Formats: sequence, C-alpha cells, structure tokens
Amino acid sequence: MIIDKLIEKITALQAPIVVGLDPRLSQIPAFIKDPIYDEKGKTPYAAAEAIFAFNRAMIDNVYDIVPAVKPQIAMYEQFGPAGLACYFETVAYAKSKDMIVIGDIKRGDIASTAEAYSDAHLGRTDIDGEPTSRAKTDFITVNPYMGYDSIEPYLADCTKYNKGLFVLVKTSNPSSSQIQDMHAEDGRPIYAHVGEMVGQWGYELIGKSGFSSIGAVVGATHPSQGKALREMLPHTFFLVPGYGTQGGKASDLTGMLNKDGLGIIVNNSRGITGAYQSEKYNASEKDFAKAARVAVLDMKADLEAYI
Amino acid sequence: MIIDKLIEKITALQAPIVVGLDPRLSQIPAFIKDPIYDEKGKTPYAAAEAIFAFNRAMIDNVYDIVPAVKPQIAMYEQFGPAGLACYFETVAYAKSKDMIVIGDIKRGDIASTAEAYSDAHLGRTDIDGEPTSRAKTDFITVNPYMGYDSIEPYLADCTKYNKGLFVLVKTSNPSSSQIQDMHAEDGRPIYAHVGEMVGQWGYELIGKSGFSSIGAVVGATHPSQGKALREMLPHTFFLVPGYGTQGGKASDLTGMLNKDGLGIIVNNSRGITGAYQSEKYNASEKDFAKAARVAVLDMKADLEAYI
Repeated sequence: MIIDKLIEKITALQAPIVVGLDPRLSQIPAFIKDPIYDEKGKTPYAAAEAIFAFNRAMIDNVYDIVPAVKPQIAMYEQFGPAGLACYFETVAYAKSKDMIVIGDIKRGDIASTAEAYSDAHLGRTDIDGEPTSRAKTDFITVNPYMGYDSIEPYLADCTKYNKGLFVLVKTSNPSSSQIQDMHAEDGRPIYAHVGEMVGQWGYELIGKSGFSSIGAVVGATHPSQGKALREMLPHTFFLVPGYGTQGGKASDLTGMLNKDGLGIIVNNSRGITGAYQSEKYNASEKDFAKAARVAVLDMKADLEAYI
Repeated sequence: MIIDKLIEKITALQAPIVVGLDPRLSQIPAFIKDPIYDEKGKTPYAAAEAIFAFNRAMIDNVYDIVPAVKPQIAMYEQFGPAGLACYFETVAYAKSKDMIVIGDIKRGDIASTAEAYSDAHLGRTDIDGEPTSRAKTDFITVNPYMGYDSIEPYLADCTKYNKGLFVLVKTSNPSSSQIQDMHAEDGRPIYAHVGEMVGQWGYELIGKSGFSSIGAVVGATHPSQGKALREMLPHTFFLVPGYGTQGGKASDLTGMLNKDGLGIIVNNSRGITGAYQSEKYNASEKDFAKAARVAVLDMKADLEAYI
C-alpha cells in the first residue's frame, strides 16, 4: 500500500521530510530565467519552462535524501494551461526518480465533480473509451467541509490505483482556529470531529505499517492539537505543513509521533527551495540547488534531535 | 459593483438562473465529437475541442435569456492542460457575449497560496513585471474551512478588480450535514457560523442593490436552512446549486428570497446542457442546443410560479 512505501522510504532515508515545490519566479535564478525570457518573452510558457528547470534541479539534488516532494498546484495554475503542464511534468520527473509525489490540490466538491478531480489526479480520465496516460500523484490533499460523499470518489480510486489522501484536519495558518477550533455541542473542537471522520474513512486502507493511506493534514504550528489528534488517531499518518517559514519548530512535533517515532512527514517549501537567498546560506545563484540540499540536511539534523 | 451588474441582468431578463457548464463527453453529440476524434484521436486535446464547441453552442443559445454561466473547473481539469485551456476559452467566450461568469473552483488554501489562486482566476499573475492577460471570471466559489486569512487575498482582488466570491456555506450534497450541520456550543450549526462570517467578510463590498459581492453557496436541497440564512444575512446573495437533478424544487427557494423577490441565482447544469437526452425533451442530437434553450425557458417558468 502506498502509505507503506512512503514509510519505508522515510525509514530508509531517516528523513520524515517532504520538499514543497511551490516555486515563485522571484526564487528562480536569473541565469535560468533570462535566456528563456529572451527567447519567449515574459509569457506563461516562459514562466512554466523556467519553473520546470528549477524544479528539475531541485529534484536532482534532493531525490536521494528525501522520500517525497509536494508540488502546490496553485503556483502552477496561476500560469494557466502552461503552468498546469509544468505541474504534471514536475510530477512525472519526480516519479522518474522514484519519489513519492503529494499533489497539494486541496480539492473538495460534490461526488460527480470529485470523480472528475480524482480522475485528473489519482486515476484516469476516460475519453470515450480511451484512458488518458498523464503522470499521476501518489497522494493528494483534499478538503472535508462538504462531508463524506465529497471524499468517497477519491477513496474508491485510492483502492483501485494504490493511492492516498491527506484530508485537511487542523491547518497551519493562523485563521485555522476560526472554524476548525470551534467547539461542538459535545465540547470537542470541530477538527477533532473531522479527525475522527478521517480515521473512519481510512479504516479499510490501513497497510502493514499500521498506518492508513488516508492521512490528515495537521499543522506544525499547533503542537497541542497535534498531540491530541495523535492520541485519537493511532492509524492516521500526518502531513505536517508549517515548519520553518510559518513558525513551526522541530520540538513542536514530538507529540504527533507514535512510540516508534513514526507518524508524520514534515513539509518545507521556501526554507529549502529558497535557501540560497536566505541570510543563513547566502549562496550565489549558481549554487541555488546545492544550497537546497544543504538546507534539507540541516532540517534532517534539526528533526533528528526530536524524532 | 459586480453584484449590482448581476442583479440588474437578473431583473432585466427576469431570470435568476445560471447555466452550469459542466460538460461530460457523454452529453456531447457524436456529430461534434466524431470528426474531431477522426482528426486528432481520442486525446485530451480532442476532448477539449469538442467541449468548447459544445459550450459555444450552449452560450450562443442562452446568452440572451440568462445572465450567467458557471463552468465547473473539475470537468476541464480532468483533461489536463488542454482542458484548462478550454476552461479559459469558455470564460472568454461567455464574456464576449457580456455574460457574468462564475468560476466554480472551490479553492481554499493558506494566504500565500490563495494569492496565486486569486491571480489565476480574479486578478493578474505577474511574470517578472509583465501581467498575464488571460480572461478572468467575475465570481469564483471558495471554501471557508481554513478561515479568514485563506479568504482575505480574494477579498483584496475583489475590491481591486471588481470581482466577487461565493463562499461555501451550506452545500447541496447529502453529506453536507456531516460537518456543516454540526451544532456548536452555542447551539447554532456550523453553517450558520460560517454564514455569519461570510456576511462580515462582505460588509465592505455591499453595492447599491443592497447585496454584497461576497455571496454564499446555499443548496436548493436545504430549504429550511436557506430560510434561516436569509433571515440572518440580508445583504448576502446566494448561489443556489441542487435544483433539478439533485432534487431541489422551485417551491424550496421562496424562503431564500428577500421581500423584493431577490437574493438568489439558481444553477442548473445537466438539466439544461443535457436536456436533449432526457425523456422530457427527447430531442435529436442536431437539436441539442435548441433543447437547452427550451429547458431554460421551462426552468424560468417553473421559478416564476414561486419567485
């Protein structure tokens, strides 16, 4: 099961780390962008080409030390069709390096629509009898606000195609408190109710690792909520955003682990892909990808002190 | 303000109707698809071309009797970059007919990511100083589960570019009850709390019509909840899915209206675009677009009895 493969890779590499591929043009070195702009102008196609070159260099420099990448689709969708093509090329390239790919798409819609999203990102789209062959992600993130029937089509494809989900439970952003922390009549917060649902939705997809391919998104910025969710949900793997730039620290993560030190994969996007521009690394543009690798190794060391 | 323009068109046409453009290949007549398949094979590009031809015929046959169309982006995203190109071409074609376009995208993510989605669908994406010029929707649907900071970037673009939102409050699907109807400690359901937030988020974008450009999605399948929301939210316009195929009836809508009979726009997708295939209309393939027009006029008459 895909969750077992993810955990095997985390264990083998001793790195519960996913590199977020959310490239901003301001992060892409001029020596990559300028020749493309010179040839194609400052067009969406040029932007997409520059982003793919950047992503490829990132993947080449981290694929042997981290198990997974997580492209954030918004950063591609903003460039329209050319951007979406770049998203799927990035997925395909990471898969060619045997990485696990988590598509951060946060979709959520009624069942008939969810089927189309699931076809797009996990399964296959049928064109009057011909299935499409586009590269697919291993996991996607989804939004639970519309309830079970909006999630069920993805579950069916997770079973059929050996894929997984991370369902938003307690997100890393400050305003996540507004709805997610609201208390229900039984005194428990909404995120705990949603967490419980996610545990149930994933029950039939628990692998030999003891974790389910249906996981939860739980922000590093909320350690006490993360601890409470771990206690409630022994079989639910957590995708943890919010480490680094958003303020989450390695010491905040210990409560989310099980007794074997497993249970989470921690995302870092800008802290890795933009490392060369940071005061800490202060590398030249030419060394942008090497700086990313150093940043991954530093993050690994930071996490090892607690995990 | 864009909400005033929408309400003016609804009033002028006496049609609080939005046609959902969620084409399925099974709805597209063979005489459109087959020549394209013959030339290009059953590829995503062929599917996108067939869908655009179908959408163009739909728009040509309804633009003078309804104010708006609502493409559901999942139905395009499933065909990858070619599908997304078709989505934006459909938006551009509807705009060329002076229709209001509601992009049903249901996005929701942290602020820095929401900015990218907002650039993609409401504003402009900056390519190192060059703004993109892709056609943009007038409204988009968004998901509130992550709270205010995940909505704020869209609000900023709504002000800057005269756009609007419909925030998911009480959705039309059966499982919407699971989270949205959960009662908070004060005894009120979550959807009422979310509705209240949407009212607050839209306060600064109330137009001369008395309605805000920041509206709510409220399913036709939930008449009592719709009535409660109308009483709470006098300035919030409702996008109402769930009429027809999903079971919502015209008589279910009266509680969502204000005393002037305004306050809603009702979506119909398959009931219009697939009318020619239904037992009721049983039209030939050649008459697919005419059947859609008749279905719109029938829906208008059905609504007029109650609105």
